Amino acid sequence: MYPQSLQKLIECFRRIPGVGEKTAERYALAVTEMDPSAALEFSRAIEEVKTRLTTCHICGNLSDEETCPICADPDRNHKMIFVVQSARDVIAMEKTGQYRGVYHVLNGLLSPSKGIMPEDLNLDRLVERAADAQEIIIATNATMDGETTAMYIDRLLKETCPDVLVTRIAHGLPAGGLLDYADEMTLAHALTDRRQM
Amino acid sequence: MYPQSLQKLIECFRRIPGVGEKTAERYALAVTEMDPSAALEFSRAIEEVKTRLTTCHICGNLSDEETCPICADPDRNHKMIFVVQSARDVIAMEKTGQYRGVYHVLNGLLSPSKGIMPEDLNLDRLVERAADAQEIIIATNATMDGETTAMYIDRLLKETCPDVLVTRIAHGLPAGGLLDYADEMTLAHALTDRRQM
Repeated sequence: MYPQSLQKLIECFRRIPGVGEKTAERYALAVTEMDPSAALEFSRAIEEVKTRLTTCHICGNLSDEETCPICADPDRNHKMIFVVQSARDVIAMEKTGQYRGVYHVLNGLLSPSKGIMPEDLNLDRLVERAADAQEIIIATNATMDGETTAMYIDRLLKETCPDVLVTRIAHGLPAGGLLDYADEMTLAHALTDRRQM
Repeated sequence: MYPQSLQKLIECFRRIPGVGEKTAERYALAVTEMDPSAALEFSRAIEEVKTRLTTCHICGNLSDEETCPICADPDRNHKMIFVVQSARDVIAMEKTGQYRGVYHVLNGLLSPSKGIMPEDLNLDRLVERAADAQEIIIATNATMDGETTAMYIDRLLKETCPDVLVTRIAHGLPAGGLLDYADEMTLAHALTDRRQM
């Protein structure tokens, strides 16, 4: 019912996960109302991201260069590797400003039900890097797939690089979290991982 | 913190009204995960919409041609004009399959507080079209600005084309609406606009 060019754009927006019919219509109409220069910039930005953006050949993080700025930074501790599911997690951690080591992006989590197997993840490179590292911090999500992946990597590293220290980020009450609002799993984790004050 | 090309795309998504920082990040990352061909299609679709899409010179609806398919359809009743705020409203009405007249898209609503004045709306063309019409159905939203615009158009048409019938779409309980959940304005409208059974 929409003009063909608009219909096409609505379909393109719909390909983004989580964007439904109504939202895609709203976004496409918003594009029609943009300045021509802003829309052209948008169109170019999509092209650029597909042509320029690549993954760092060391850590697998998204980068415009072959080596990402974090791996290229000599002031960071390259012996400490923080293992995450995706590039978004790198950003989340960098925003804390608390971490001075480097990262390793798995590009997914093991999930037998979705058919995601060890060979689908960026694991070979992790084993290579672990040989030179002091500590590998596994920071996959606290979900079923995240825990499975963490356990798998722990076993894999214990077999291949028995000297490296493998740690897991802490699970417990979130900052500002109320005890009586926390779910049982979180409380159970908080109890198990308690530390001396 | 994101690579420059990705950061740029995030900023472009943020220009869409209602898209916040997190959502823009999610959308931009989804684009990085698209097939290169799908992303190229997306980029082209944005360009196309800005180059091909125009407004119908008769009704102001969005169209790929100078005259939109509705205005060009000889089987429709061109003496009955349904006046709406935006192109989205045309689609909403067309989806009902109940209306066989034509449309007039105002491209906005009068809103003194936002500085939107009669000269900002597609009103001159409406007055011209009204001279040849039998009925003008005012279907602006049931909001303050929608009612103000409806009243303004009614007065304008009574002055310029006193012979044309000017009507307003009905306001009342929505389909499936429960009386005790309806707000007072809706109930008041439903009472005022009651009809004989």
